[in-house]
Amino acid sequence: MHVEEHLRFMRLAIEQARLGMTNNEGGPFGAVVVKNGQVIAAANNRVTSTNDPTAHAEIVAIREACRQLGSFQLNDCILYTSCEPCPMCLGAIYWARPAQVFFACTRRDAAAINFDDDFIYREIVMPPHERRIPMFSLLREEALPLFTLWREKEDKTPY
Amino acid sequence: MHVEEHLRFMRLAIEQARLGMTNNEGGPFGAVVVKNGQVIAAANNRVTSTNDPTAHAEIVAIREACRQLGSFQLNDCILYTSCEPCPMCLGAIYWARPAQVFFACTRRDAAAINFDDDFIYREIVMPPHERRIPMFSLLREEALPLFTLWREKEDKTPY
Repeated sequence: MHVEEHLRFMRLAIEQARLGMTNNEGGPFGAVVVKNGQVIAAANNRVTSTNDPTAHAEIVAIREACRQLGSFQLNDCILYTSCEPCPMCLGAIYWARPAQVFFACTRRDAAAINFDDDFIYREIVMPPHERRIPMFSLLREEALPLFTLWREKEDKTPY
Repeated sequence: MHVEEHLRFMRLAIEQARLGMTNNEGGPFGAVVVKNGQVIAAANNRVTSTNDPTAHAEIVAIREACRQLGSFQLNDCILYTSCEPCPMCLGAIYWARPAQVFFACTRRDAAAINFDDDFIYREIVMPPHERRIPMFSLLREEALPLFTLWREKEDKTPY
């Protein structure tokens, strides 16, 4: 793809961010998923308007793109997002497996307007029990047999 | 809360995992959100049955709990999940801000049955352009003014 096309799709993502903010749907973030040079999903952040803390632009766009494709994988797709993905969205990207990601602003730009992205990046590498939201393991021995069942399950759909 | 109650809620999460796997809705993962000793959401992984790569048990449970509360914040809630949250779910937890998290199996247990959690944890700390899914910055200077608009916006809902 020519660089002009990448710029065009990124500007679409930025425009989504502007629209969503102007309409009070959520924060100033937009994302676009492109496959074979075609936009298959475009979205803006909708956290506050839908009471859904997971409704970041990237998550909404990934879910919509998967719906369009009838698949839980974004093979050969490119994601354009107006800001570097937060850890939640980065994780979603790895599960959806697009080919490439472009972002505009950085996690530090987001931190400068009081979004937690950079804080969460720092929490992720800490041991679970030392995190600001403390996390403890419980009953591993009762849950683990399910994983053996999964490994041996013959009619499963891997993902 | 007494430890017996924590065990009871974790067993509910494990039971969700078992049901979802048995019903072929997705992987062997379940989660429960509890507030004031009451279950307000219970969910299992639904990635493959809904073609939604973000439909991990924790994400589905967080979205449902927020819907129940009419809020994008899980104040005073506890999340129980049958496996250590992947980076996507960990990020969602930080955005939803429950008070505490309990998990059963670990990311290494998940890796042992071929889930990417541990791989994604290792990718997250890498510089964006060196990741297995390469990520590049583009047009930051065109997107950044939106962040200034957001900071100065008087009718915004922070989150």
